[in-house]
Amino acid sequence: MSSAGTASDPQVIFTPSGRRGRVPAGTTVLDAARGLGVDIDSVCGGRGICGRCAVTPAFGEFAKHGITSAPSHLSDAGDIEAAYRAEHGLAAERRLSCTARLLGDAVVDVPPESQVHRQVVRKDLDARPFVLDPVVRLHTVDVTPPDLATPTGDLGRLQDALREEWQLHDLRADLAVVRGLQPALAAGDYRVTVAVHGGAGGDVIAVWPGFHDRAFGVAIDIGSTTIAGHLANLTDGTILASAGVMNPQIRFGEDLMSRVSYVMMHEGGDAELTAAVRKALDGLLASLANKAGIKRTEILELALVGNPIMHHLLLGIDPTPLGSAPFALAVDTAVEIPAAELGLRTHPGARAYVLPCIAGHVGADTAGVILAEEPHKAEALTLVVDVGTNAEIVLGNRDRLLAASSPTGPAFEGAQISSGQRAAPGAIERVRIDRDTLEPRFRVIGVDAWSDAPDFAERVTAAGTVVTGICGSGIIEVVAELFLAGVITADGVIDGSLAARTPRVEADARTFSYVLHDGGAAAPRILVTQNDVRAIQLAKAALYAGVRLLMDQLGVEAVDEIRLAGAFGSQIDPLHAMVLGLVPDCDPERVRGAGNAAGTGALIALLSGAARREIEGVVRRVEKIETAVEPRFQEHFVEAMAIPHRTAANPNLERVVDLPARPTRSDADATAGGGRRRRRAVGAASTGDQA
Amino acid sequence: MSSAGTASDPQVIFTPSGRRGRVPAGTTVLDAARGLGVDIDSVCGGRGICGRCAVTPAFGEFAKHGITSAPSHLSDAGDIEAAYRAEHGLAAERRLSCTARLLGDAVVDVPPESQVHRQVVRKDLDARPFVLDPVVRLHTVDVTPPDLATPTGDLGRLQDALREEWQLHDLRADLAVVRGLQPALAAGDYRVTVAVHGGAGGDVIAVWPGFHDRAFGVAIDIGSTTIAGHLANLTDGTILASAGVMNPQIRFGEDLMSRVSYVMMHEGGDAELTAAVRKALDGLLASLANKAGIKRTEILELALVGNPIMHHLLLGIDPTPLGSAPFALAVDTAVEIPAAELGLRTHPGARAYVLPCIAGHVGADTAGVILAEEPHKAEALTLVVDVGTNAEIVLGNRDRLLAASSPTGPAFEGAQISSGQRAAPGAIERVRIDRDTLEPRFRVIGVDAWSDAPDFAERVTAAGTVVTGICGSGIIEVVAELFLAGVITADGVIDGSLAARTPRVEADARTFSYVLHDGGAAAPRILVTQNDVRAIQLAKAALYAGVRLLMDQLGVEAVDEIRLAGAFGSQIDPLHAMVLGLVPDCDPERVRGAGNAAGTGALIALLSGAARREIEGVVRRVEKIETAVEPRFQEHFVEAMAIPHRTAANPNLERVVDLPARPTRSDADATAGGGRRRRRAVGAASTGDQA
Repeated sequence: MSSAGTASDPQVIFTPSGRRGRVPAGTTVLDAARGLGVDIDSVCGGRGICGRCAVTPAFGEFAKHGITSAPSHLSDAGDIEAAYRAEHGLAAERRLSCTARLLGDAVVDVPPESQVHRQVVRKDLDARPFVLDPVVRLHTVDVTPPDLATPTGDLGRLQDALREEWQLHDLRADLAVVRGLQPALAAGDYRVTVAVHGGAGGDVIAVWPGFHDRAFGVAIDIGSTTIAGHLANLTDGTILASAGVMNPQIRFGEDLMSRVSYVMMHEGGDAELTAAVRKALDGLLASLANKAGIKRTEILELALVGNPIMHHLLLGIDPTPLGSAPFALAVDTAVEIPAAELGLRTHPGARAYVLPCIAGHVGADTAGVILAEEPHKAEALTLVVDVGTNAEIVLGNRDRLLAASSPTGPAFEGAQISSGQRAAPGAIERVRIDRDTLEPRFRVIGVDAWSDAPDFAERVTAAGTVVTGICGSGIIEVVAELFLAGVITADGVIDGSLAARTPRVEADARTFSYVLHDGGAAAPRILVTQNDVRAIQLAKAALYAGVRLLMDQLGVEAVDEIRLAGAFGSQIDPLHAMVLGLVPDCDPERVRGAGNAAGTGALIALLSGAARREIEGVVRRVEKIETAVEPRFQEHFVEAMAIPHRTAANPNLERVVDLPARPTRSDADATAGGGRRRRRAVGAASTGDQA
Repeated sequence: MSSAGTASDPQVIFTPSGRRGRVPAGTTVLDAARGLGVDIDSVCGGRGICGRCAVTPAFGEFAKHGITSAPSHLSDAGDIEAAYRAEHGLAAERRLSCTARLLGDAVVDVPPESQVHRQVVRKDLDARPFVLDPVVRLHTVDVTPPDLATPTGDLGRLQDALREEWQLHDLRADLAVVRGLQPALAAGDYRVTVAVHGGAGGDVIAVWPGFHDRAFGVAIDIGSTTIAGHLANLTDGTILASAGVMNPQIRFGEDLMSRVSYVMMHEGGDAELTAAVRKALDGLLASLANKAGIKRTEILELALVGNPIMHHLLLGIDPTPLGSAPFALAVDTAVEIPAAELGLRTHPGARAYVLPCIAGHVGADTAGVILAEEPHKAEALTLVVDVGTNAEIVLGNRDRLLAASSPTGPAFEGAQISSGQRAAPGAIERVRIDRDTLEPRFRVIGVDAWSDAPDFAERVTAAGTVVTGICGSGIIEVVAELFLAGVITADGVIDGSLAARTPRVEADARTFSYVLHDGGAAAPRILVTQNDVRAIQLAKAALYAGVRLLMDQLGVEAVDEIRLAGAFGSQIDPLHAMVLGLVPDCDPERVRGAGNAAGTGALIALLSGAARREIEGVVRRVEKIETAVEPRFQEHFVEAMAIPHRTAANPNLERVVDLPARPTRSDADATAGGGRRRRRAVGAASTGDQA
């Protein structure tokens, strides 16, 4: 180790950290780095096997660092480095820091991939860059063979080696590790690699003979409808596979409350739901491992998020108390247990980390969203909504953070909508309606063209589908577009007078519908009915009312940033969301989708112990608002039924969208129907139509 | 709490601790005690339910303690105490310290049964008294009901209550407790009792609705042949049941090494042996619970000992490395795991504590023996031998402690002896041989008379048996008695010349036998053959040589105290053991059986966390001697073949027993045959017999 070098010793400067010091000549670069607290990775512990500690000696940078002698004085590559270079390859300018010795002054660059705490950047996940801080790390050690004179146990000698080589004190070991230790020592000629969970004071969870450098983890977001997972390499943070499966609990109830009802009404129902979700998780692990080309027994760590009911059912806790006030969670802190306790077949030593819950309706998924979007670090007042059957809402900034959930119901997911469906090939996901002709054009999932393209019908056929219905994002857009085109009023009434202008508006018993698509004999007719509009109004009003409640609590009238998260949420066009009044007015430039932020949060927690400690702290500080018992929630809800929110100014929206004229206050106070201008027209038209 | 009382506050003195202090008038005696660090038990936490905190206000003792006012000024018994007295009974002079309030000066005696750290005294177990220091304790708490305004989890509110009421900080909880918490809170109207393992920083392992005061534990000694257990009440240390079962591993091999051979020669053999012993343990738990009239799910804690091979097989660790040098243990430190991991059906939260091993041949059973006999605290140089197929030997005192094991083989257990058998009804266990007539008399297990009693034959029949063989203690005695009667020489040769004097000595091919019993047609003839004597000589020489090795190491020629432990060891008559030379010469008054000391050690570890910490420390300090590689072991072994050890003085033995004349050194160096006096006779007689 470097320890106290004297003035005549070589000076070494590490970049990018800038740490510098003098070490005795002959010290390896790795030892010098460790002594100076420079972050260099290593699995093999300086045996020239793993190649994780490769560094780049810098030339010509000496003057900058105040050293005049040049070039870098490192020992020439020896046999070990040459062997590594021959077998695994190593860029010409790179050296293994565990074999290169400092003979004179040197400047040494530690590239990001050789740092333990490297940045992980994944553009395709919508994930913010974050710093790897592995909870599970691999360490190769040479264990002293047993000896008659000092009859200590194998485990004791392993612990000694880990303490001496890696400064890992006070490690415990799983019994399975104790079982596997002797065979591994024998097979590896007393060299073994172990996986240590939680660093010093933590647990040895796995042991392999000799050198071993494969360790994987899986981050899972358990949604009510779908379960999504990412499989990552724990040693460098790369993502090797992503996959999703349906949540099989759906057969016990589409939405959360119907699943709770199932549990309440069926003896052993909670165990059934628990078994179902665990089996699905286990299958997901298998398919992720398969996709990534690894064995499932190489999975050493899991991180999981889910709403409170999914969270409880995963852990085998009866969720019944979450079904009614006071919505008491059994446990709100983070849970760490052996993955085997969840019936998951991974490495037997694998641990599962379940993020903390925030409140009875605001779960570990919201904790994941916070971790992914970091509103608690923002200066700007940030609103994050994760839209689902329940919308989770987080509002705040570095000073204060509030969270609530709002019962939006399943309309946004296509349920309760006459032509609603899940996002799947054939579903309409984008809609535009011409302000003059009132003609629509749309896009369907799986077809790469708008519906007004000449070859659209052929393309749909080529995709092996028909236009089957409208998914969540399509519903938001069509209602918003109908409003912008004046087909529906600010109060959500389909203007029957327009039936005179276009066959797109057609009457049924007492109301009107808009014909979005007529597929002919081969496909369903896709209408937007008055009931559909009402369902969307109810859902968006619930969401908006929840947001509004948090804004009241903070005493603000506007937010600076909006993130729309969730599988559905991130598909919503921000502008249409604002037109419809799902979210408050905001600069459209500062409204964006956040992808599956809950899943991203799980991934960050998988790969960073620091992130776990961070979210555990943040969750304790979050102020929880229970919408169900806030009297103002109902007021806001009623207010928020209008499209767009008719009592508030929408300066940002008005700047970018040509909104129908905003009604005056007296209009708004009028009963049934929309604003005056529309209502008058409606009255005329409907008279005509009904005649 | 008492905190800082002023001079005008009542003064309270607790006996027997002598702690005293002033507390504000109206403070309960329990709170005053806690504030002064006085050890008073309580499960219910001062709710007047458990009665554990009963105390005796002392009258007339004031002057002694420097208080002049009298009598004790305690509040009168209120409704709660009256109700407790009516329902559960309470001695007239006793008061519940949680309800009695200090109104003036008082002297209060805390009886032993109201102290947490009470002494446990069990004469019937040969166990030393020890102080209870429960690892598992019960605590009743009232948990704050959930509340919409502060949506913390049930677990968090339980942790808050345990911290506030019991100063139990940083508790973790088993997932099963989290699962059971909400139903328990609901059933107990937010009052629950929990079992906490390991105090502050430990684990909540069980939860029950309302008040609950039943908690049991089992201490188990896993011997190669038998498995013995004690079921104890964890709250007061009383033993409610003891039982034993055969170790079913016997079908894989009688002795340890043949079981290791089985494992080496059969794929999956270790798993078979592990399953066998765990199943037997599980059955033992069932029968103990049944005997004690409790449910097995009320068992919350286990403590286990066993030799290294039993220890490894229990834990599911392949014992093969223990079969050959360097006899490496997989783990030598204490192991604490969920009992469920051992396949034992107890309370799901029960933990199993396995005592530490000392070396490859000196196991957790020896750790138990040390804990039971405490040689490490003795001033006298103490030798403890646990005699079995391997003899475990501990020698030392408070300054230094040595341990070794010696391969005595199974002769002491009746194997390799022509009429040998296990200790069971019908087995000869005591033998006396008349020095003149050479006629024997003996006792058999299950019959309460010596064989020379007139009605002995009837009594044997009445016991439903015949005389079937000789068990270990009988073998020791018969060989020692044969030596004392001059039938065998100091070198272990049966004196054939005596065949002329008595038909008890009879010839076979080349040697002679002694007829101990001729049961006629109905029962086997029980002989002591020359081979039997040789087998015992080998076994005792191995034991003695091991002891001698440790004495060499300590540089001593004699020991002050001897303890013979183990199911067999404690049955040996100390005098006969010395005559035979199993153990070195010692004042017979200071040689005694120690019962199943290993099992007693397990019991102490079950009931005392302090004892666990103590033995873990002692085991680290013990000096381990490996007999297999000590060259002097073979020398001692050869020397020790003679009966009694012919090269050493036996002053203590000679003082109390009429030993045959001790041969001179030149006699000893002569070949075949015994000392001169006998040898001469042997020569004459055998000539005659062989003629």
